[in-house]
Amino acid sequence: MSTQTVLPIDILIKKRDGLELSSAEIQQFVRAVVLNGEAKLGTAPQEIAAAEKITDAQIAAFLMAAFERGFTREELAHLTNAMRYSGETFHAAPLKSFTVDKHSTGGVGDKSSLLIAPTLAAAGLQGTPSISVPMISGRSLGHTGGTLDKLETIPGFDTQLSLARMTEVLLECHAAMVGQTPRLVPADRILYAMRDHTGTVESPYLITASIMSKKLAEDLNALVLDVKVGSGAFMPSYEQSKFLAELMVSTGELAGARTVAVLTTMDEPLGRFSGNWVEVWECVEILKGKRHALSADLIELSNVLSGWMLYLAGKAATPEAGALLADELMTSGAAYEAWLKLVAAHGGDVTVFAEPASFHKPKATRVLRAEQRGYLAGMDCKEVGWAVQRLGAGRAKPGDPVSAHAGIESHAKLGTFLEEGDPIFTLFAEEEALLEAPFAMLKATVTLSNEAPTVQPLIREIVRQ
Amino acid sequence: MSTQTVLPIDILIKKRDGLELSSAEIQQFVRAVVLNGEAKLGTAPQEIAAAEKITDAQIAAFLMAAFERGFTREELAHLTNAMRYSGETFHAAPLKSFTVDKHSTGGVGDKSSLLIAPTLAAAGLQGTPSISVPMISGRSLGHTGGTLDKLETIPGFDTQLSLARMTEVLLECHAAMVGQTPRLVPADRILYAMRDHTGTVESPYLITASIMSKKLAEDLNALVLDVKVGSGAFMPSYEQSKFLAELMVSTGELAGARTVAVLTTMDEPLGRFSGNWVEVWECVEILKGKRHALSADLIELSNVLSGWMLYLAGKAATPEAGALLADELMTSGAAYEAWLKLVAAHGGDVTVFAEPASFHKPKATRVLRAEQRGYLAGMDCKEVGWAVQRLGAGRAKPGDPVSAHAGIESHAKLGTFLEEGDPIFTLFAEEEALLEAPFAMLKATVTLSNEAPTVQPLIREIVRQ
Repeated sequence: MSTQTVLPIDILIKKRDGLELSSAEIQQFVRAVVLNGEAKLGTAPQEIAAAEKITDAQIAAFLMAAFERGFTREELAHLTNAMRYSGETFHAAPLKSFTVDKHSTGGVGDKSSLLIAPTLAAAGLQGTPSISVPMISGRSLGHTGGTLDKLETIPGFDTQLSLARMTEVLLECHAAMVGQTPRLVPADRILYAMRDHTGTVESPYLITASIMSKKLAEDLNALVLDVKVGSGAFMPSYEQSKFLAELMVSTGELAGARTVAVLTTMDEPLGRFSGNWVEVWECVEILKGKRHALSADLIELSNVLSGWMLYLAGKAATPEAGALLADELMTSGAAYEAWLKLVAAHGGDVTVFAEPASFHKPKATRVLRAEQRGYLAGMDCKEVGWAVQRLGAGRAKPGDPVSAHAGIESHAKLGTFLEEGDPIFTLFAEEEALLEAPFAMLKATVTLSNEAPTVQPLIREIVRQ
Repeated sequence: MSTQTVLPIDILIKKRDGLELSSAEIQQFVRAVVLNGEAKLGTAPQEIAAAEKITDAQIAAFLMAAFERGFTREELAHLTNAMRYSGETFHAAPLKSFTVDKHSTGGVGDKSSLLIAPTLAAAGLQGTPSISVPMISGRSLGHTGGTLDKLETIPGFDTQLSLARMTEVLLECHAAMVGQTPRLVPADRILYAMRDHTGTVESPYLITASIMSKKLAEDLNALVLDVKVGSGAFMPSYEQSKFLAELMVSTGELAGARTVAVLTTMDEPLGRFSGNWVEVWECVEILKGKRHALSADLIELSNVLSGWMLYLAGKAATPEAGALLADELMTSGAAYEAWLKLVAAHGGDVTVFAEPASFHKPKATRVLRAEQRGYLAGMDCKEVGWAVQRLGAGRAKPGDPVSAHAGIESHAKLGTFLEEGDPIFTLFAEEEALLEAPFAMLKATVTLSNEAPTVQPLIREIVRQ
């Protein structure tokens, strides 16, 4: 018999029936998705072969079948790799360096990238074995903040570098902090928009492929994942966060990158500030050696993640030794030096770091205070994140501007005993009216208690192969 | 809190998660589907409310979620009813009659509708309790034949009646045999095209909603379903056919129509001929009282189905008594009288029935003969159906013309002992070249054996509530 052409519909029917797809089938599907996207932009070839012709409806049907059926670990690695190579990728070879990055599933006040990138860069600048951090980050999404939005509050800081310029910055600074270029992992952009539209966002498999395809497009030797658990995490339960961590670790390892996931608690905002400039401010103070008591959890998290990165890169004998080295690089000022170099290479004005507090210019502030004595017992951290975004730090839809100065300051951590009238949060916004709803949200979500609450440790579990 | 508008995406997410949808949610989804279809044709209102705005991708995602998750019996009845009322429907009130119809899931050589409609019409013409058969049929699909294609081989026979004209024909003849009007059950047309395109055809739930929405749009008091099992059936296993039968019976009963399903064997073509005119010819001979030995299974099937219809309509005390009555109506000539009246009412030329054999004008014929002695032991009846369609009786794609005279004659039933050279099938086509592939297909699929095969009985099981 003649050989039958496998069509995209055959591939989606196979997934519908829970059969395992081959690497070739998954690659064919992803090529078809990208060609469909290019056809809409008018940039596709005139003639698309039947094997690579797909419609939005077929993509949606595939995504729903994938949502319901999941993937084997091998299929997931194939999907991730097909997406990773769907457009241009970063090429690390010119760096002659061990490439390592971190990724967080998203939190509130989680600015650890701003500490980890300069810390690792400082280690990289100190010579063999060479380390580089080709960090491609995202923007504020949902209730979580975005590294790019924070960096862009530094006057002149350009996150939209070409891959060629990114290479130059990495050769000079051993770290670069950029946004996704338009041609990087186009399959993810298309599939994410489709998932958002068809109720297929919350699949751990599709989340893994989305995250890992973008991270692996950085041409990494190693990747450390910060997978959040708790009320501020995207995943609703510890088990689901752990399952996501396992999928990401398996996918990274199958794609040839050493991958470790750290499950960390996100039950309250991390560190002292949540927002955009206020988070840069907090990090600059730490890098200058001024450690505020409320930044302790942030510093611990950064050191643990940096420690794993330094260990995987061969700079430390153990992750614990790596964490100590990371702390040393911060206290010695080496990380701050690397930070200044990095910001300057991105075109950023480092003079604002001289007095970061004075650069903070919210036009309206309000303080939420304890209405009675008691322990700060709990909050829905996701709700706190939404309050921060609604203050102006995040966006209602992609492309909206964000406020540099909106955000909150945390005055107490969970488990702290408060007297009546003690401040809990200070809110910052561009105008008085913007304070109303977030203030009410924060007031409603914070609970005080006569009994000391059980507070989860920050570092919960390590997932690795 | 303010009430949240339920959007189509919320409904599809509910189905994705296996939650039960309410009648209101299902109606909202179906309305959105129809509005989406009208928007493409430019016939939708200018402003569609957000609650009824849906995209092809969202419809596809819903269908895949429905494929994977299924429906409860109640949800399925809600979906079927929402589709049934998505456009115009037939109104039986003016008939002052018990409306009853039959539907087959599709077979090869299954022309029982051409016997059952006049038989029931004959019973209806004989007075109280009055019966009418508002039969809305389909065309050849896949490997199966279509009643409309068969009827249209009668010169002048018009199957495309308006519902008003259909009512007139029913008042006069107590049966009408028509095609779906463009405005009848538009939701099914849209959803079927989408299912065909997104790999979601083979869901027993979606098949049930598709079949039953169209049948119930006939405003039926009762419905008898012929659900095929065996190698020529759409469903691959007995269990799946039975499950489909159960879903259809439950849906019909919940929608207020007495519904019975008969599981019948489809392991070989039914009766003597398979095609278009040749099937009309076979029925005309039977209605005239000339019963060919090879039509015995067809007559048995028609009598059983008619028997159930007469029983449900109150014309017979038992289904068995109904089958005897049906046989009498055929042997007495009453059914033939009703047939002539029915055909004439549809504009058909009844003079061709005088010598139906002489109206058969295939330009090319070929006989497949037994190459050795042995029992006719088996065939893939689906493959036989495809051979019939490829001879010209069916279409490669919707809208293609079909040949009136293409088809096959069966010379022996399964279990018959054949001598070397005995004919098995005669093939008919419009030209010699069209015989080649179907001849090879039939030759390859027929098996002869030294041992008598086990032949399944025609009537397998009754499914009712």
